Amino acid sequence: MTKPLWIKNASQLVTLASEQQGPRSKEAMSNLGIIENGSIWIENGLIEAVATTEEIKQRYENRLHEAEIFDANHLLVTPGLVDPHTHVVYGGSREREFEMRLEGATYMEIMNAGGGIHATARMTREASEMELFEQTSRRLNSFLQHGVTTIEGKSGYGMDLETELKQLRVMKKLQKEHQIDLVPTFMGAHAVPPEYRGKEEQFVDLLIEEMLPIIAKEKLAEFNDVFCEKGVYTPEQSERILEAGKKYGLIPKIHADEIEPYRGAELAAKVGAISAEHLLKASDHGIEMMAKAGVIACLLPATALYLREEAAKGRKMIDAGVPVAISTDCNPGSSPTTSMPLVMNLACITMRLTPAEALTAATYNAACAINRQDVAGSLEKGKQADIVVWNVKDYRELQYLFGVNHVKSVWKKGVKVVSNE
Amino acid sequence: MTKPLWIKNASQLVTLASEQQGPRSKEAMSNLGIIENGSIWIENGLIEAVATTEEIKQRYENRLHEAEIFDANHLLVTPGLVDPHTHVVYGGSREREFEMRLEGATYMEIMNAGGGIHATARMTREASEMELFEQTSRRLNSFLQHGVTTIEGKSGYGMDLETELKQLRVMKKLQKEHQIDLVPTFMGAHAVPPEYRGKEEQFVDLLIEEMLPIIAKEKLAEFNDVFCEKGVYTPEQSERILEAGKKYGLIPKIHADEIEPYRGAELAAKVGAISAEHLLKASDHGIEMMAKAGVIACLLPATALYLREEAAKGRKMIDAGVPVAISTDCNPGSSPTTSMPLVMNLACITMRLTPAEALTAATYNAACAINRQDVAGSLEKGKQADIVVWNVKDYRELQYLFGVNHVKSVWKKGVKVVSNE
Ligand SMILES: [Zn+2]
Ligand SMILES: [Zn+2]
Repeated sequence: MTKPLWIKNASQLVTLASEQQGPRSKEAMSNLGIIENGSIWIENGLIEAVATTEEIKQRYENRLHEAEIFDANHLLVTPGLVDPHTHVVYGGSREREFEMRLEGATYMEIMNAGGGIHATARMTREASEMELFEQTSRRLNSFLQHGVTTIEGKSGYGMDLETELKQLRVMKKLQKEHQIDLVPTFMGAHAVPPEYRGKEEQFVDLLIEEMLPIIAKEKLAEFNDVFCEKGVYTPEQSERILEAGKKYGLIPKIHADEIEPYRGAELAAKVGAISAEHLLKASDHGIEMMAKAGVIACLLPATALYLREEAAKGRKMIDAGVPVAISTDCNPGSSPTTSMPLVMNLACITMRLTPAEALTAATYNAACAINRQDVAGSLEKGKQADIVVWNVKDYRELQYLFGVNHVKSVWKKGVKVVSNE
Repeated sequence: MTKPLWIKNASQLVTLASEQQGPRSKEAMSNLGIIENGSIWIENGLIEAVATTEEIKQRYENRLHEAEIFDANHLLVTPGLVDPHTHVVYGGSREREFEMRLEGATYMEIMNAGGGIHATARMTREASEMELFEQTSRRLNSFLQHGVTTIEGKSGYGMDLETELKQLRVMKKLQKEHQIDLVPTFMGAHAVPPEYRGKEEQFVDLLIEEMLPIIAKEKLAEFNDVFCEKGVYTPEQSERILEAGKKYGLIPKIHADEIEPYRGAELAAKVGAISAEHLLKASDHGIEMMAKAGVIACLLPATALYLREEAAKGRKMIDAGVPVAISTDCNPGSSPTTSMPLVMNLACITMRLTPAEALTAATYNAACAINRQDVAGSLEKGKQADIVVWNVKDYRELQYLFGVNHVKSVWKKGVKVVSNE
């Protein structure tokens, strides 16, 4: 038994508590459940009570002396952020390619110099499990520093069984040994391996017949993701992969309509995906189908910025009734960042979400997108004590004062993991 | 006499040292003067020597024992960043307005609710000198945390003599009492005060006849800046103001061609401005004239992002021979940020500068834009020991791994002011 922890005197305690279960859409995305001058009482890493500081003081009058006390000193307190879409496990680094592109190198010149996703695949194949573990661990530390306490990670830089398994095993080990919660997704169909170019169906067969059974057997993933895009995997191939995964209990996700409209949003609704990702070019019909089916739109505005693309139509999707989550998409090619605070800023600036919607998208809805809404994403009795104290007083300032990491302190399951005093 | 300070073992010591004096353009913006495994020897807050760690060790062999030693541990070391364009001295905060806009409020609704620049003018008028000092001081702390050791600040939220003087006096006091170097600019012509709408000429007369003499007499500013834009101040009015300032020794700067092409870049060349600001809509002819006259383009990509505008044509300007600097434009309306690292990232992502050019634009050229190139902006013998150690090994990573503040340690005049160990 550890001491109880009392976090008191939040200027605003953003609980995101609600009667409603499951992903929030429309007006529900603006209900932050704010308690002014709020307090949280924590026992054994779990939230025991959430109320005003005055109420908590009265309720636990007889136990105050035994508690560890953290005075938030009239700063903003929120749930730990959740990042529901990353490719955080990868080998190598591609800053030289970034420079080459800015110096005017063409796509082919970069490929010939050994760049692009296949460079990362090569470096990930070459990295030992230990190297991958350590590189990824440093990135996860940076996520914690930015207030993220739960994060999804995908395989997909192997595109051969051995490397896919290596990535997933590294995640399993990190989930045990790192303070962050890491939720694993299998994404063998991230790109077409060079040796299967023109023989995509064969690779889909291999993935379904050889990879999925092993991953299921070793319980290495909870989700199954596919890059459904023209020239990569067709909606039909994607559907086969996702339906096959469902038989093993893997929940479908889809990288959909990033580069051009390709019925990805529609497919997400059809297969009952928990979320569809990117969606820069999703059709109106696809958006409507997602709203009806309750598929979460997982939007990645940092990626759009980095690639100089128009951001996804977040405003329109919310207005259409689609529950929206946001994510860094952390990856070495199109979004080498660990900053969910910046992603929230960009959700407001480039997708016209309100500050409240951006916060819901980065906490409760993000938790829903990786099936963690029972333990994370809001501050409610019984949930993990994943908590951030910010160096601002009002949740609007988080988005308004942009480009700055306002994190002051972070607790994961009641343990303080970041302290910028 | 303080102890000498030896910063050793930089993976890359980016000195930006060069024979060439004055603002750098074209290829000169890519010459970072990198010393691999570099060291700096500092005495009394000034740089005494810059060389490889091996060379420094030999040269100071007999004095190593008396030095304070900081081991950079094979991380990147650069000069302190310089922010040459801010409106950092202001009262109040406008996060509610930010939210209203995202909730769909029109410009007029926001004005009627008391928003916009006149809201900041009102709150700045109402703030006491002490309140302004403390608010600004906190912002300057955040700049230091982001690796900025020298910063320009403008008046311009008063638009009456009393408040303009108050802003400038606050800056004078901060320059004395805060660790950062703060360089003051008078910008009485930031907007048209409501009471002078339609009588702009009268305000220009007032500014020239009453404000400038006092500011010059009290030595409250080094630069004189004007918002030259359709519906605000015409090029002719701007020229009058800037020429009048020159008689008092105030160096001209111009907010030019932000909203539409208005001959601002041309005017900057004509009056011999040290820099022209924003330039989103500068004409090709104006860019050519700036290149010929050696006017620095001070570009503000965070502002463009925040306002969802196309960024200035930084790539084109560099190719045309204009020396480019970059800046936060820190202000409560269109760029409430203190992150020069993000501005460097955006210079690459949205303006297609290379990582090396972005670093030159944020250090040496930025120092030139506020006439501080003799003391700041590069690591050379005799200059102030304004130094940043970053949590990356290669200068390219600073821009590539975007949205993250990689600052580890900062020294201002040889004194450690930031320490994120
Ligand atoms: Zn992805
Ligand atoms: Zn400005």
